[in-house]
Amino acid sequence: MIKVDISNIWGVLSLSDLLGIEAELSAAHMAVTDTGWMELPDRSPTAEHMRLLAAAHRIRENSDALVVVSADGAGLGARAVIELLQGANRNLRCSKGDPMLLWAGADLSTRGWNELARLLEGRDFSLCVISRTGDDLESAVAFRNLRWMLERRFGTAQAKRRIYAVTHREEGLLRHMAEEEGWESFALPEDAPDCFGVLSPAGLLPMAAAGVDVMALLRGAAQMKAEGDLRSFENPVWLYAAVRELMRRRGRTAELMESFEPDFASMGRWWQRLSAGTGGGLYPAFGELTGQLPVLSRLLHEGDPGIFETMLRFGPPARRAVILEDVWDPDGLNYLAGRKLDELEEQLWQSAMADHSDSGCPVVAVECGPVNEQTLGALIWFFQLSCVLSAGVRGADPFDRSGMEAFRRELFAQLGRPGLEA
Amino acid sequence: MIKVDISNIWGVLSLSDLLGIEAELSAAHMAVTDTGWMELPDRSPTAEHMRLLAAAHRIRENSDALVVVSADGAGLGARAVIELLQGANRNLRCSKGDPMLLWAGADLSTRGWNELARLLEGRDFSLCVISRTGDDLESAVAFRNLRWMLERRFGTAQAKRRIYAVTHREEGLLRHMAEEEGWESFALPEDAPDCFGVLSPAGLLPMAAAGVDVMALLRGAAQMKAEGDLRSFENPVWLYAAVRELMRRRGRTAELMESFEPDFASMGRWWQRLSAGTGGGLYPAFGELTGQLPVLSRLLHEGDPGIFETMLRFGPPARRAVILEDVWDPDGLNYLAGRKLDELEEQLWQSAMADHSDSGCPVVAVECGPVNEQTLGALIWFFQLSCVLSAGVRGADPFDRSGMEAFRRELFAQLGRPGLEA
Repeated sequence: MIKVDISNIWGVLSLSDLLGIEAELSAAHMAVTDTGWMELPDRSPTAEHMRLLAAAHRIRENSDALVVVSADGAGLGARAVIELLQGANRNLRCSKGDPMLLWAGADLSTRGWNELARLLEGRDFSLCVISRTGDDLESAVAFRNLRWMLERRFGTAQAKRRIYAVTHREEGLLRHMAEEEGWESFALPEDAPDCFGVLSPAGLLPMAAAGVDVMALLRGAAQMKAEGDLRSFENPVWLYAAVRELMRRRGRTAELMESFEPDFASMGRWWQRLSAGTGGGLYPAFGELTGQLPVLSRLLHEGDPGIFETMLRFGPPARRAVILEDVWDPDGLNYLAGRKLDELEEQLWQSAMADHSDSGCPVVAVECGPVNEQTLGALIWFFQLSCVLSAGVRGADPFDRSGMEAFRRELFAQLGRPGLEA
Repeated sequence: MIKVDISNIWGVLSLSDLLGIEAELSAAHMAVTDTGWMELPDRSPTAEHMRLLAAAHRIRENSDALVVVSADGAGLGARAVIELLQGANRNLRCSKGDPMLLWAGADLSTRGWNELARLLEGRDFSLCVISRTGDDLESAVAFRNLRWMLERRFGTAQAKRRIYAVTHREEGLLRHMAEEEGWESFALPEDAPDCFGVLSPAGLLPMAAAGVDVMALLRGAAQMKAEGDLRSFENPVWLYAAVRELMRRRGRTAELMESFEPDFASMGRWWQRLSAGTGGGLYPAFGELTGQLPVLSRLLHEGDPGIFETMLRFGPPARRAVILEDVWDPDGLNYLAGRKLDELEEQLWQSAMADHSDSGCPVVAVECGPVNEQTLGALIWFFQLSCVLSAGVRGADPFDRSGMEAFRRELFAQLGRPGLEA
């Protein structure tokens, strides 16, 4: 489904480099096979999935907008899938039966809050709150204020039927609140931090509420999981994970992910958090093509900035776009008339790879097939597993959250939270 | 207006480092004072500004949407200002008299094109096309197809009155087309490439069409230009430009710009292009706070990734947001009740700077005052001049486009453009 082409990096890496890391990869893969997020890809719906689809259906019927409150990467992952499938401007086309998706809880911006409050004014909305514990600062603050808005609009009894909580199966503040208040709730996988929740209800509920075929997404992930289980470099996940770690060992400090699809931006941000959060040791940068090509070309040719590139591309959709003929040809573009946009994109992709390789920057090419639910399920799995394996081979624990929790504790102490005063 | 705080980098740089680079900065500044983009900031409207405001007024009256067709950074700069002032979701609130702003010409995505065509279906729209020459591939292709849609909807005569061209004053394909067809047109400054056109009609026309007070923006830029003319480190532009170049000389390979304002994302992308395109030699990365804080903390504490950070923050808006009291306090947040969101943001900003500095990552703090037209005019000038000076001190020509043009020529040859066949 996903192809990784490393023909542009042979100057930097050799076959023996790859073979030398194979045993380490195998060990890193073995070390994570028991983790809960590994069980998320699925080929057939469970009872829990059916309950989730029913909840999404209810949201679609009674809401003009669903506000997803999430400090972490699971909400961002859902947004990434929705924007790739339906376009970043999908909210402009929404009407009753197909709610807007709005995102909150990942900042403390007063301007952002005022704008959200203004957008919700006069609209029937529901809330999907995602948090393992319920006490992330940004999302807890947003959730409290949004709950108040919801109660003011619908009254407390009706409001309860418009709140959906995705949280720990048994413990924590949010689980406790959901039980007390009778909110419909779903479980996060036990040991999957943040960005690994996309294939759990944390990602699936917002996606389904936006009309995404989440079962197809899970099938795509399941297929990629099977392909990613091959214990050899025919497995694209192993190949990509190995290249990332070998690049780091060669002294590359950053990976620049670039996509030719403008609506990939949220996926890029999700991947940035996934990659930085798993401890692969590379700074994950993200850039948009084709807009950045000219300046990137200058940057790379002026000297080695110590990075490597991962260029990502999707196949064309069924409805292809053609460059029109103009009998007057005022812009001199008739030599392209009748050609398809994706053919031009393909040429630009080839030119960019050649140009960047010439500059000495290693370029990994990732081809993903057409944008659809299966592909994106596969891609999410591809990114998750490759980050976990890169980190594992480096000797880092991809799921270690001790540093993040220390930072949060210190912050809460500064804010004067009872029991944690500075 | 803009404050640069370098108190968190004294471990890496010393006062004598700064003083040692002062003469180089002065020379770099002298070298660019004659360039046309330096004349763009303005305190009082010219006849050309009045004509631009009249055009914007016409667009606001007769259009549901303005499509800005631009391959380069000027269109992106306009988008950045509009989204910061009015919110990234502004299009959701648009109605007759306040058109949607849509963006095209910076990619070859078939999906993107199909979505744009679908959004324009049934809407009265106008086109603003921005190009120095008129033969950038991506924007020329988008412009041809959009022109056809416009003519199909309004007929050729009416369509002509809905096309606004911003291009070279005298030469080039687009200038020629505008004269032939009678489109209203505006001039780009002679020697200002791409990202330096934001304060020219290329940026001002889309902004004014969105209802931005562009004269206030120009006044803010003019004020920053005056402050940036001080030949000492009391000048925040000099201070920032010096730090960037000194960081590069210390072996830092990337600058990570981070903002606490979620609607800063387009400004971040514009800055990325500006910075990479001027040849400062640092990879310009961009990240969003507060979302990325936890993973960034992990990345920085696990080992020095060879970057430095620029953390940027705006002051609170007039209408501040308060965390509400809840008598039942189910989420335990009452210890924050009555406090303002921006106070919490301020605490997070302090905590993040302390945490990142502790990790050994140098952090430059940039405080910009409240989000308004003056501030953003000043900020645009601050970024433009600092990038030019960093590049100049490094010995690079910030306006050199030869590499980009070579890349484009090669691409056109591959595509079989007459006279350039491969």
